[in-house]
Parts: sequence; structure tokens; C-alpha cells
Amino acid sequence: MKAIVITEAGGPEVLQLLEVDAPKIKDNEVLIRVAATALNRADTLQRLGRYPPPKGESEFPGLECSGVVEAVGKDVLRWKIGDQVSLLVIVACGNCLMKCLIEFELRRCHRFAIGDSVLSDAIVLQLAILMIMLVCALVAGGGYAEKVAVPAGQVLPVPPNISLQDAASFPEVACTVWSTVFMMSHLSQGETFLIHGGSSGIGTFSIQLAKHLGVKVFVTAGTEEKLAACKELGADVCINYKTEDFVSRVKEETAGKGVDVILDNIGASYLQRNLESLNIDGRLFIIGFMGGTTTEINLASLLSKRLTVQAAGLRNRSLENKAVIVNEVEKYVWPAIAEGKIKPVVYKRLPLEEAAEGHRIMESSKHIGKIILLVP
Amino acid sequence: MKAIVITEAGGPEVLQLLEVDAPKIKDNEVLIRVAATALNRADTLQRLGRYPPPKGESEFPGLECSGVVEAVGKDVLRWKIGDQVSLLVIVACGNCLMKCLIEFELRRCHRFAIGDSVLSDAIVLQLAILMIMLVCALVAGGGYAEKVAVPAGQVLPVPPNISLQDAASFPEVACTVWSTVFMMSHLSQGETFLIHGGSSGIGTFSIQLAKHLGVKVFVTAGTEEKLAACKELGADVCINYKTEDFVSRVKEETAGKGVDVILDNIGASYLQRNLESLNIDGRLFIIGFMGGTTTEINLASLLSKRLTVQAAGLRNRSLENKAVIVNEVEKYVWPAIAEGKIKPVVYKRLPLEEAAEGHRIMESSKHIGKIILLVP
Repeated sequence: MKAIVITEAGGPEVLQLLEVDAPKIKDNEVLIRVAATALNRADTLQRLGRYPPPKGESEFPGLECSGVVEAVGKDVLRWKIGDQVSLLVIVACGNCLMKCLIEFELRRCHRFAIGDSVLSDAIVLQLAILMIMLVCALVAGGGYAEKVAVPAGQVLPVPPNISLQDAASFPEVACTVWSTVFMMSHLSQGETFLIHGGSSGIGTFSIQLAKHLGVKVFVTAGTEEKLAACKELGADVCINYKTEDFVSRVKEETAGKGVDVILDNIGASYLQRNLESLNIDGRLFIIGFMGGTTTEINLASLLSKRLTVQAAGLRNRSLENKAVIVNEVEKYVWPAIAEGKIKPVVYKRLPLEEAAEGHRIMESSKHIGKIILLVP
Repeated sequence: MKAIVITEAGGPEVLQLLEVDAPKIKDNEVLIRVAATALNRADTLQRLGRYPPPKGESEFPGLECSGVVEAVGKDVLRWKIGDQVSLLVIVACGNCLMKCLIEFELRRCHRFAIGDSVLSDAIVLQLAILMIMLVCALVAGGGYAEKVAVPAGQVLPVPPNISLQDAASFPEVACTVWSTVFMMSHLSQGETFLIHGGSSGIGTFSIQLAKHLGVKVFVTAGTEEKLAACKELGADVCINYKTEDFVSRVKEETAGKGVDVILDNIGASYLQRNLESLNIDGRLFIIGFMGGTTTEINLASLLSKRLTVQAAGLRNRSLENKAVIVNEVEKYVWPAIAEGKIKPVVYKRLPLEEAAEGHRIMESSKHIGKIILLVP
């Protein structure tokens, strides 16, 4: 199969589409024929040699994908390869038939053979249904490839109403945001929430999910265009960090109290200001270090406001842990996507071989939302 | 009434027993005639002028007490002043009578008048019961006094089997430990827990509560005598921080993994070592700064192990918040005390006027457990 290989640590040009061995699945894994993958900032760090894959994982970049189930390990129960799974006989009038067909479409039964006969005002259909399981998945690496092996617990169905390609934009952001500010920081209805980098993939998803759950959303971003996009997605307070002091603005908008939860990808250089921006019982969740890792902290400021500082990533979690997160995401986030409350925000769709161009865009920070690579 | 007054910021000698105005209760408050109060390290900081009472609270030291309900505000429903509350007629044989009397004793019905008559093998009793409500309470200040006004939500019954005086040793430690490592850090059965200062009031209580809840307990302390006391209370791993490196010892005892939760009263000087001592998904809870407040932090070390750093105190919490904590303590901790699973650990009982001597002992750090002041 073909995959994007990091030929050596370096700039985007080190990403090359090469012929490599296809992955072999373990008993608990699913082999996905990849339709699309999406970029994450961690991919650029991996390319630079600063974020090596966990031991035993694919060396190729790519932390999420969508595609078709092509093979399953013997312990996998839920996911099945494309197969002719049933022969249905449906008796239906014209209207009902339409409804049936729409429902089948929603269920992603993509091919069916129809043999019909008219009986008064009803139609008898024999539908030979070829189920093709359309899925997306959280992977620990190897998404930039034609095929990827994924533990079954990290596979999700493509949400209804979402194209197979755009579905690749959800697993990493949904699992990151849900596992951090919701599962760990317990961000709740009626609270206030500041997202740094509101126009990033994480940001554009967080805004929509938090608004859907009744949270008041504050974002920072560096251009008016990005802030307008955040506003469009539902952000309540949009702060241009280049022209405004976010601490003052947060205080101003919260009657001096500060926000309840912050999702931060900056780290050290924002730590003090983030702590100042938090309300009593506030929680700071750090998921990235674009502003460095090491700084001074005044622990007394934590005590006086009863603050919580947390940090976590997804990639190094255990399979059991990832499965719990993916399961919660399917339960709590997928319905919101199905209802159209959370839409994919895709900045660019590029063919897989243009992965380098995708990385250049991400490193320019010009993008709003996700960058997707399409696998032919 | 008499109270210990901090006559000026300074050493223990500034604590003087003086005649002061008795507190007036608000509609939601209970007036407690104090039988005993207990020392907390925060009291010594308050005496030094470094921990002023919250606005509107008593200027006198003392964060907990036990005593008798002497008056209640008009909005107080649960607590009542000593009163003849009921007249019971009991028909009982001799054995049953004993049982009744024991039960009344347990319920702290301290005085009753008995008028009996013998009917065949049973006894008819008329019990005029004078209920005296024996309570203990978490207060924001003013415990070192003959009387203190306390919001009703911060009052607890004296646990069965605990003397009125020793009950003063529980409110502050129980509410501190429960509200931090249990309510916020979610310390759970089967986890490992490191307590710095295992022989302190907080420490001796934490050991017993954690063991009762199925947690493996690690402690640090500075003398073999203190460590022996911790061991006696149930601590599994006792570390002399003066002769051993606690990080190495924790790693050694946990197969290199580290502990799940740390309760720390040291702050800055232990921060890095505490983070090193934590397991994946570990939580550090800071409640004191005996080793300073400001230091360097490497946030990447938080991310790689998915750590949580938290700090909080009790005194500045809202009344609603304190009431929630006290309510949980009564629900989850009081039964363990009633069952004898958690015992008061009292190092010294001194008369109120010797508060200065109590402070000297606390500042010498020679004590094991709580220091109680008895109010005549």
C-alpha cells in the first residue's frame, strides 16, 4: 500500500508518499481502508522528530481517519467487513417506499438490488442489501495511508448526515475535547469556558459542543477573520489576543469573576494569565505547549481560588482508556453531530500526496478548522 | 464572655484570655457554648498576622469547636436549644429497659426523669427527656472562646462514642480531608495515597479515613516516633523524610508507578518531587505552604502522566459550599467514627488560657495528632 512516510526529521518536504507494507491486524483490531485522514498539530511535531509514536505503533503520521472496514480480527464483535448481510422483503406503498429508502441511505446500506412487483397500491420489494461499514477512528499513528489497523474500541460509525470524508475530521478533536474539559474538568451547563485558539480544529469543535451543552463560550484568536468564524460557530465572546489583553477582557465580561474552565494549547507563557482569568473553583486544562513547557507558578494563587491545573494527551492512553473515551464520545457527542448541532469545519481538502502542503498550511496557522487529506 | 484575643501580630505570648463581647447570632446561626476547641496550623499563621479572618468573621482564632447549643436563629430548623422535648411511656421488661436506657444514652439524652410502676414482669416508665444537643462545628474563626456563633449548616452532632471534648478534634480535619482528596481528587478504593506530615492532625485523621475506605496509605514524617504512630493508625508505608528520599521510596513500593493521590502541606519545595512521585492520572492536592508558594513547574511532566494539581482551603468557601461539605462529612465520615474505625488522636488537652502553650507545641512540630483547648 502507499503511505506518507517521514523520511527524516525536518520540514514539510520530508513527507513523501512511498510504497510500504500494509499493516497486519491483531485479534482485537479492525483494518480500515482509509478514505480520508485529518491533520493535527501533533503530526507536525512528529515530523520534526519531537513527538515520536508510542512503542509498537505505526511510524507513519496520522491520528485519525475515516474509511471502510476491510478486515476484522477474530475478537472483534461489533465491526464487520462489507458483506451481503440480509435479504429483506418489504411490502410498502409508494410513500413508505421512499421512507424506507431514505432510512437505508441513513444507515449507509450503500448498495441494494431491487426486485419488485406491484400489488394493488403497495409494492413488494426484495432488497438484497450489501452492508458496507463506514467508520471513522482514533488511531495512534498511521492515518496518512491507504490502510490502517485500529483497535476495535477506537472505531466509531460515521455519524448520520456526515460525508465519509468529513467524518475524518471528528475523532481526534471529539475525543480530545470530551476526555479533557468534559470528562476531567467537568465543564457543565451554565458555566463559562475560554478556548485559546478558537479557530483551530479543536477550537471550532469545542465552540459548537460547548454551546450545544449550554456553556457560555469565550475564544481567543489572532485575526478578525478567525474571530468572525468563531462567532459564526456560536462563540459568545471573541477576543483578539494580538490587540487585547485576554485577562482584562475575560474579567470585564464576567463581572470580575473569570471563567470556569480554560482549554489551553499554549502552556508556559500563558500559565499565569490563565490562572488570573479563572473564576473560583476554576479549572485550567492544558493540551499543548506552543508557548513552552516550563515557567514559574504561584501555588498560593491556586489555593486562594481553589483552582485545578491539569494536562493530558490522547495518544499515550491505554487501549482500555481510549475505548472508554470513544464510547462516551459516541454516546454524548455523536447524537449532537447527527442532529446537525455540530458540523465539520473543514478548511481544505487535499489529496494524500500533498500532505506536505497540508503541513505548510497548518504551520502558517492561517487555517480555520481542519485540514483533510483524501486517500484515493 | 472570655475569649483568646490576638493582641498584636507576634509569638504565642500575644494570645491573651480577655473579656470580650459575646457574639450575636444571625437568623441562620446557632450559638454554641463551647466545651472545647482544637488548634490548627492556620491559627499560628493568623497569630503571626499572615492569615487574616475573612471579612465579617470573628477576629478571634479557632476554626472548630464542640459544645452545647445555647441559642438558635429563627431560620434554624435542625438544631434546638436544650429543652424538655418529649414525654414517653415505655412498657418494657427489665432487659428491654436496659436496652432503652443504653439507647437513650447513645442518643445523648443526658437527663431524664423516671416515674415507674411494676406491672407483672414489665415496667412502665414515664421518661421526661431533656434533650441537650451536643454538637461540634466548623467555624471561620472565634473557636477559642466561651461562645461562638456558627451558621447552622456547619454544625454536626457529636458522633456516638466520642466525648464532647474530643469531638472538637474532628470538624476541621474531616471537612478538609473530605473536601479535598475525596470530593475533588476522587481518591478511591484500591488506590494509593501519600500523606505528607502523617502525624499531624490532618495526617492522623487521613490515615484512618483512607484505610477505612480501602486505600493503601503512604506517609512521610520526620521522626521514628511519629512514623510508629502512623503505623499504629494503619499506614502501610512509613517514610522518614529526614533519612530517606520519598520519591525513591514511593517508586520502590509501587513497582515504579508512583501513588495515585498526594495530600501535601509543603507546597513549592516539594512540587517537583511530588509530581515525580505520582502515578499516571495522579492528583496532587496542596493544602499548605510550609515549603513556600512559588517555584518552577514543568507543565510537560503534567501532560505526559495526565496529572492534576489542585489547592484549596476551607475558610474562604461560601456558606452554601461549607454546608455541602459538612453534609457529606456527616453522611460518609461520621458513620466511620461511630463504628470506631476513626478515633480521635489527641496529643494534649490544655485549658483555654494556655492557648499560647498550645501554639508553642504546634510550632515545635513535636505533637502527634490534635491539640485541644478545654473551655471551662
